[in-house]
Amino acid sequence: MSKPKGFEKPTGVRDYLPHVVSKLRYIEENVLQSMSQWGYRQIITPTLEYYDTVGVASSTSDRKLYKMLNNRGTTMVLRSDMTTPIARVMGSLLKEEQLPIRLAYHANVFRSIEEEAGREAEFFQTGAELVGVDSPEGDAEVIALAIACLQAAGVQNFKISLGHVGFLSGLLEEALPGKVREQEALKDRLLNRDFVGFREQLAAFSLSAEQRSELEGLLRLRGAEEICQQALEISSNEQASASIRHLCKVWEVLEAYDISKYVMIDLTMIGNFSYYTGMVFEGYAAELGSPICSGGRYDNLLAQFGRAVVATGFALKTNRILDGVHLPVPQPAKPVMITYDAASRREAFAHAANLRQQGKMVVTEYAAEAADISFSPDRYGEVVHFTRGSQAMSQ
Amino acid sequence: MSKPKGFEKPTGVRDYLPHVVSKLRYIEENVLQSMSQWGYRQIITPTLEYYDTVGVASSTSDRKLYKMLNNRGTTMVLRSDMTTPIARVMGSLLKEEQLPIRLAYHANVFRSIEEEAGREAEFFQTGAELVGVDSPEGDAEVIALAIACLQAAGVQNFKISLGHVGFLSGLLEEALPGKVREQEALKDRLLNRDFVGFREQLAAFSLSAEQRSELEGLLRLRGAEEICQQALEISSNEQASASIRHLCKVWEVLEAYDISKYVMIDLTMIGNFSYYTGMVFEGYAAELGSPICSGGRYDNLLAQFGRAVVATGFALKTNRILDGVHLPVPQPAKPVMITYDAASRREAFAHAANLRQQGKMVVTEYAAEAADISFSPDRYGEVVHFTRGSQAMSQ
Repeated sequence: MSKPKGFEKPTGVRDYLPHVVSKLRYIEENVLQSMSQWGYRQIITPTLEYYDTVGVASSTSDRKLYKMLNNRGTTMVLRSDMTTPIARVMGSLLKEEQLPIRLAYHANVFRSIEEEAGREAEFFQTGAELVGVDSPEGDAEVIALAIACLQAAGVQNFKISLGHVGFLSGLLEEALPGKVREQEALKDRLLNRDFVGFREQLAAFSLSAEQRSELEGLLRLRGAEEICQQALEISSNEQASASIRHLCKVWEVLEAYDISKYVMIDLTMIGNFSYYTGMVFEGYAAELGSPICSGGRYDNLLAQFGRAVVATGFALKTNRILDGVHLPVPQPAKPVMITYDAASRREAFAHAANLRQQGKMVVTEYAAEAADISFSPDRYGEVVHFTRGSQAMSQ
Repeated sequence: MSKPKGFEKPTGVRDYLPHVVSKLRYIEENVLQSMSQWGYRQIITPTLEYYDTVGVASSTSDRKLYKMLNNRGTTMVLRSDMTTPIARVMGSLLKEEQLPIRLAYHANVFRSIEEEAGREAEFFQTGAELVGVDSPEGDAEVIALAIACLQAAGVQNFKISLGHVGFLSGLLEEALPGKVREQEALKDRLLNRDFVGFREQLAAFSLSAEQRSELEGLLRLRGAEEICQQALEISSNEQASASIRHLCKVWEVLEAYDISKYVMIDLTMIGNFSYYTGMVFEGYAAELGSPICSGGRYDNLLAQFGRAVVATGFALKTNRILDGVHLPVPQPAKPVMITYDAASRREAFAHAANLRQQGKMVVTEYAAEAADISFSPDRYGEVVHFTRGSQAMSQ
């Protein structure tokens, strides 16, 4: 193990230089403004949480949690998501707050990574949680808000895939009753979008031809509202049917929002968080293979923090949008450069203050002689020289 | 050691509920906008840094650093300031960038605390660094910017105390040559504003009457520009004199900014960071005993990261301003509540979208009957009911 050199930073974390921060702030500000206009109010929670509370309740696998000990020997974690800390706040500071509660956040989260994997260990999520609404209306609202946020961020081409964890669970429990390991194996394939592997797994299990065909049929259940009818026909399992009926109602509300054109029902979608209990969705941009947002219903999480209420929410994967999606971020204006000699400070500073009040960016620089200044048009939009107490020239 | 309960968070960290986030965001946005108008561009660095690079170079004492091991057994720290990470970036990503460089940030930083102390373990700083300007003009610029930022944040009554680490060092080296421990003891007293203890320490050392009187005289060196002349008379030490001459030039530039009325020279001010090498300053609000901003020149720090250039900067102690200073933060508007039955979704959502486009906050809620809605004027500014496809009533 060699000592890190003076200029090195840990693997998996990054520095954001000003031109990147401009784009990140553009996403953050526009998305948070959208959320605010939908009545979602911002919350900030600490970077550090107890392992035994938020760490354990989070859906992040234990080996991906950043852990550390505090002075008293209690294990703490760097937060790996914001949904779990917000659930904690719902059970403490907001315990008496009237439902429904709408909360928004923009926050950095952490994942301990294998160094060689080239993945980010710290990244931003911008998300919203709707607590206390137990209806398809609530599910549709967070999908509609996610779409509004993607549009506010400037994402031009995207599609939302909508599924329900209960449909697959019902189907699998019917086909492979009690066989948790086999069910998990199949779910893993779907989670990794490995449809070939899913079929191979199915073939390896002892299933009736009908059951296998039913489960393989799942892979075709992707499309618009016609999927609702097809899915109802594929299975008579009660949990699966109830899930589909719920999803069809969500679709009906999405049509009233006039946004069903952005949404595709995809019953192979099962959500990547263990705490999801109902509707799940992911957003995909045309430019990227991996999702740029994900969300879903998590009706059991808050009970772990002493307030047994339902909830649904989503988060934008802000760094993927930042790095992978073309956005119409306006070019920042170049500052005005004002130079001055010792006799012109007061006039130069007054001129700078005046321009700043008009909203301009102004940099001032001392120069004994105007000739000392080399004008760099890359950095400055304009240069104004002050000499002997008055404005001498501009370029 | 008892296990933390489900709703507990670690000592020293906090949740910011929406009404507090509003105020924090008000400070952040106004201050960053000021910095931008002065040509300072935002940078973001990682929360995690290597202990051997940024941890060691930071001015935070070792026992106050949050440390953890990464997968490879390398010690990492949660950043304890932003000046040191920015120095690292200056030596890496910005190594080739033309000077001067102006950078701004708003970031959370961490201090491992004794749990009983009731101090914050994670808090925000909003600051700026001016790299590559080796003149009183540069020092005055960051003081002027700090004042502009305090005003932008809405701090009404404040005062800046301005000092120079070289003046005291020169004086002490003259009076107690080579006696580092004694010098440090006296500096500690000044750092803690313990002037009685300073006098007691002086009495305990074997000093000539003249030397003691010279050092006690230091305590009277607080005021406006007349202090420059008085300080020059107090000592003939070369370092002390050079420091004072520099400070007098800074004062001259502050007068040209027309802000010397906010500034008091205080030669007992020595700055609380070990990396300061020249001018140091602190800002005090009328409401608070502890400083709300601090800054200074640190000409040697960047050399540790491979780029030997001078720098000066400051940071607002954002949490102290948030908690301790009355600011003119505008009350957020209450959202409009739109309720709808199943036959009115489309009309209600269209109305909501329309109001949001006008910049209003709108919450929608399904209600089979208008009578199901209890209007809470605490939460909503207005309620609009949609029934059977059209707007039924407002209240």
